[in-house]
Amino acid sequence: MEPNDLSEALGNVRRSTPLVHCITNYVTVNDCANGLLAIGASPIMSDEPQDVADIQRICGALVLNIGTLNERSIEGMRIAAATAGECGHPIVLDPVGAGASALRTQTAGMLLDSFDVAVVRGNMSEIRALAGAASCTRGVDASPQDAVTEEGLAQAAAFARDFAARTGAVVAITGAIDVVADAARAFAVRNGTPLMGKMTGAGCVLTCVVGAFATANPGDGLTAAVAAVAAMGSAGEMAAARMQPVDGNGSFRTYLLDALTNINGEALQAIAKVQEL
Amino acid sequence: MEPNDLSEALGNVRRSTPLVHCITNYVTVNDCANGLLAIGASPIMSDEPQDVADIQRICGALVLNIGTLNERSIEGMRIAAATAGECGHPIVLDPVGAGASALRTQTAGMLLDSFDVAVVRGNMSEIRALAGAASCTRGVDASPQDAVTEEGLAQAAAFARDFAARTGAVVAITGAIDVVADAARAFAVRNGTPLMGKMTGAGCVLTCVVGAFATANPGDGLTAAVAAVAAMGSAGEMAAARMQPVDGNGSFRTYLLDALTNINGEALQAIAKVQEL
Amino acid sequence: MEPNDLSEALGNVRRSTPLVHCITNYVTVNDCANGLLAIGASPIMSDEPQDVADIQRICGALVLNIGTLNERSIEGMRIAAATAGECGHPIVLDPVGAGASALRTQTAGMLLDSFDVAVVRGNMSEIRALAGAASCTRGVDASPQDAVTEEGLAQAAAFARDFAARTGAVVAITGAIDVVADAARAFAVRNGTPLMGKMTGAGCVLTCVVGAFATANPGDGLTAAVAAVAAMGSAGEMAAARMQPVDGNGSFRTYLLDALTNINGEALQAIAKVQEL
Repeated sequence: MEPNDLSEALGNVRRSTPLVHCITNYVTVNDCANGLLAIGASPIMSDEPQDVADIQRICGALVLNIGTLNERSIEGMRIAAATAGECGHPIVLDPVGAGASALRTQTAGMLLDSFDVAVVRGNMSEIRALAGAASCTRGVDASPQDAVTEEGLAQAAAFARDFAARTGAVVAITGAIDVVADAARAFAVRNGTPLMGKMTGAGCVLTCVVGAFATANPGDGLTAAVAAVAAMGSAGEMAAARMQPVDGNGSFRTYLLDALTNINGEALQAIAKVQEL
Repeated sequence: MEPNDLSEALGNVRRSTPLVHCITNYVTVNDCANGLLAIGASPIMSDEPQDVADIQRICGALVLNIGTLNERSIEGMRIAAATAGECGHPIVLDPVGAGASALRTQTAGMLLDSFDVAVVRGNMSEIRALAGAASCTRGVDASPQDAVTEEGLAQAAAFARDFAARTGAVVAITGAIDVVADAARAFAVRNGTPLMGKMTGAGCVLTCVVGAFATANPGDGLTAAVAAVAAMGSAGEMAAARMQPVDGNGSFRTYLLDALTNINGEALQAIAKVQEL
Repeated sequence: MEPNDLSEALGNVRRSTPLVHCITNYVTVNDCANGLLAIGASPIMSDEPQDVADIQRICGALVLNIGTLNERSIEGMRIAAATAGECGHPIVLDPVGAGASALRTQTAGMLLDSFDVAVVRGNMSEIRALAGAASCTRGVDASPQDAVTEEGLAQAAAFARDFAARTGAVVAITGAIDVVADAARAFAVRNGTPLMGKMTGAGCVLTCVVGAFATANPGDGLTAAVAAVAAMGSAGEMAAARMQPVDGNGSFRTYLLDALTNINGEALQAIAKVQEL
């Protein structure tokens, strides 16, 4: 994957303004909507079972985030995912807190098993829980022992490729080093900043941005996911560069949305650090 | 409508701190609450059928926004609207995504038919869908072919007056040029900035602000709606003037709330561009 | 309570990164999550009855906020509170709008009666409604006649101690002057800024921060609550010091989260004004 593949993928988002239907949690939903607008997409949120099929039909993708799932929204996810399947729209799954509760683990597993998920995006603890591997989810954050380090990178890539092969989905595991893989290839993305873990929603926004890239770059989920992960990490670095001593997670959140608005192909090519593994 | 009518309407909000009960979507609800506080009102959110009647009774107005409607909140809207009717409180309706799904179109229509709605505020695609006119809703954004231009202004005004006459509501259609009308008179408001369409929630906040103006200016829904639309557009221009190259929709959102906090009668008179059609 | 008790309590939060499970309203939930991250804790939001017990078991505390309660979330609160009781986790209750509707007053009362609540945090109108005293709740804001003044401070302290004695909970009544009491002792905290009442969510965030302090300082709910209230008020003053004339409640919200991120033991000791009554 060359730097200009990334900028082209971003350009495709900006040119096509993909409509992305999100069934997501109420904690970070506003950031998800603003993040999609910032990157050049258009968000629609709808989780009511009676509403989701109509909405999904006019959209280009479906993002499912189980952060504050409930019985009604799970039913909405099922119906929306079935409709996305009929329409051939990519489905992106964010298994927030998988491993932290039986309902979350089971719901994420059900969605992955029942529907043709294009991309799964989570932290290593969540993806391990979803894969049935031993893991130690610490709430909605990755467990420290699950952190992807340079030493563990080859193993993480093998795990991601294997899980991609089993599920048919592109797998994006984000953390200090991000690993994105399909069954055949794996990439490391070394962008971002620890500040992204100190605000709520950076992961949720990324998942939505993946949805936008997947819609605008049909047929190449791996490039879409790598480009989205690199764009988000690069925006994080642009945001971090604005931080003053008096700033904290309030300002960082604002700067991150600003950076997603302003990042362009040139900046993305300059900042992105993508390596095939 | 003279400039000092606008500033007087704003002054009435600031002097009376109207309590506005909102049943609104979970995407932009925080901005709705902060927008109401910024303009000088006090927000209360409640959508549970068992809670809404008590809450509506202590408030001065009801704002209904169908952005993330569900079966429970629709029932909450019915009960709250019936209570608002008994109390003589103005009801302001935001038909988010009308035309994008059957549930949204039907729910907005049901609310408009069943209750005495004082003001309807939406984009042209939503209002056309509600009026049963041919329209092309693109999710929650107006379709480009529905944009109100200088050339189409007289036609848009006639449409708005006609819909106002049929429904008894003041009709506020917002876009590049805003059109606000009752059955007898129509006004164009030429304020705002395209940046308001690049953040989520500017329309939802405006609808809430209309609710505040309608409460504080009883018996004159048309002046209330025009003043609210002009105040919001003027605040948008004040916010846009603060934008730096590094800023994006994160900062714009903050600046818009700041501008709603700081706008006063003098600024509103200076910036507002209201024309009777 | 000495100044270094406050900074030690804050240090305990920062050192232990308490996981705080919140069942809270959808209006200010994003600020609650970012506020917890800013102060050094880790938030998890979950309100689905089938999910809450698993989530509560892995957390250190439970925050219950009835701001946009509904039938399902009330059931979630019951189950989560029962689990917190089994685990010995502190429960912090925010009776948002108690007195404004029967459902809110009854639900807050039910939670207080049925479970071992460690801290109740609200404004005077809400706490008076909960105590069955005559009160005049004005929606979710305190009624002006309920404001705690220097003249009424001794009476407010006596009321708080009495309510603490009746309920077994530490009682934190916040307003222009904050009063925090258990059955034996009462403290006044004279920090904060009126700007905190002009944004939505300052109270909700404080309640979550109390949850973090209560988890990190087990067995001393009174010190935890006083320190949390003083930290929040001090952060408010730090935020207010950054305000420029063009700023409004958008910027203040950002600055408040920034201040919660940056406040440390030294700043807290320097700014906090805590007096035993």
